[in-house]
Amino acid sequence: MGEKFFTTKEAAKTVGCSLRQLQYWREKEVVVPTIEGSGTGRSIYYSRSDLVELAIMEYLLSVGLSFATASWGLKILIRTDTDYANPKTKRRWMLRWDLDTRKLVLETFDKEKAIALLDKGQAIIPIWLETIHKRF
Amino acid sequence: MGEKFFTTKEAAKTVGCSLRQLQYWREKEVVVPTIEGSGTGRSIYYSRSDLVELAIMEYLLSVGLSFATASWGLKILIRTDTDYANPKTKRRWMLRWDLDTRKLVLETFDKEKAIALLDKGQAIIPIWLETIHKRF
Repeated sequence: MGEKFFTTKEAAKTVGCSLRQLQYWREKEVVVPTIEGSGTGRSIYYSRSDLVELAIMEYLLSVGLSFATASWGLKILIRTDTDYANPKTKRRWMLRWDLDTRKLVLETFDKEKAIALLDKGQAIIPIWLETIHKRF
Repeated sequence: MGEKFFTTKEAAKTVGCSLRQLQYWREKEVVVPTIEGSGTGRSIYYSRSDLVELAIMEYLLSVGLSFATASWGLKILIRTDTDYANPKTKRRWMLRWDLDTRKLVLETFDKEKAIALLDKGQAIIPIWLETIHKRF
């Protein structure tokens, strides 16, 4: 069985973002489609893994994060979790706001820790891969 | 006793943001200084309330929020909580990510509710005014 690929239209519809966003993310090399021939737009195809990346990006932006923060978050996540594209993964991550550096840090989601941080007024942005995968 | 006012330099230093940011926020009318004469930059003075607004903006951006989201968050907060500039306020707010609308909503910080949302993988960004006020 060959892998399924998605056109830009299919990818945008599945993930819930615009063609304009997809194009911008290609230009900025945030999510680069597995198949991207030079020339016409017809030679662009996203793999299922690419779709997961698009969905993570869409989610982080929907949380209100800036483009820079969202693309950093995606980059660090796929670098840290090599299994991110596996539809069966139940891995849970979180971006937590670090009081000392005043920046976000990626960590394994730990409920007790998250509550303790919340209790100090620190922001928690969960990234649950099972939730991401459930979207398509 | 007259109210204390701060120059742009003092305000930037106190809040921990750049003069460029302050200028941008003035241009975009996100934080408008109480005293802003036309002409030279010397006629710009921030009140203590203005500083609180700057500190909230700086905090929301440090969490990684986009400029649009941070300025929306600030606007909705000061519209909702008329006591926000009171140094004695202990009011706690939170921006929570709403799963249905896929957007942030401002609400009173409620620990139990925050934990329940976190437990569903929803982002929580606390805005505790006492923490903001403690910064200066």
